[in-house]
Amino acid sequence: MEEVLIDFEKAGGLVPAIVQDWKTGDVLMVAYMNAESWAKTRETGKACFWSRSRRKLWLKGETSGHVQIVREAYLDCDGDALLLKVEQLGGAACHTGYRSCFYRKIGEQGVEIVGERVFDPKEVYGG
Amino acid sequence: MEEVLIDFEKAGGLVPAIVQDWKTGDVLMVAYMNAESWAKTRETGKACFWSRSRRKLWLKGETSGHVQIVREAYLDCDGDALLLKVEQLGGAACHTGYRSCFYRKIGEQGVEIVGERVFDPKEVYGG
Repeated sequence: MEEVLIDFEKAGGLVPAIVQDWKTGDVLMVAYMNAESWAKTRETGKACFWSRSRRKLWLKGETSGHVQIVREAYLDCDGDALLLKVEQLGGAACHTGYRSCFYRKIGEQGVEIVGERVFDPKEVYGG
Repeated sequence: MEEVLIDFEKAGGLVPAIVQDWKTGDVLMVAYMNAESWAKTRETGKACFWSRSRRKLWLKGETSGHVQIVREAYLDCDGDALLLKVEQLGGAACHTGYRSCFYRKIGEQGVEIVGERVFDPKEVYGG
């Protein structure tokens, strides 16, 4: 086995982590990890990212309870991207209440909502 | 329908584009697009990225013939990430010859190659 060498330095300390439902294969979201959030993810088995807007560690689901249990993790050929296969607690990954953050399909004329809304954000995060 | 508004400015002109096999749901790779490569992708129906290392437009498969025909495209909640569902010509997305760039599974002890090698890079790109 080779060592897990993640190239965090290539893009300023962050790598994208694609989150995929481990059973359905649906892509749920993409977020960013730094070395610390990756270590936390490994340690806890729950997806932990780096929030670029809040500039702090972000344990996914900390507020909503919609934690992601990491079932499998993969590293790409260049060592600068991660793929996590997760069990999404609460059924939805997106803060808007949709199952996947990619709930808008791009068509010729514009975007169309095709995703499934699982919860009402007002009830989860407060109105 | 809403307008397709992609926030290229949030991360210096680039957004990550996750590429997924439109039939199997396998995540094949992640790359980056700027406004120009997105326009090219829309115009041609083939995935075109921005190469961060070569600093130029990168029509995926230009050398190898392993072009990605875009069957569907999705925009995420924040408008700063794309998901492409593609038909991968030649059966492999990765320049190393594996079907997916995420051919290395991360285990307790290190990474293990679990992907399927479809071609020999020497034969495709020259030795």
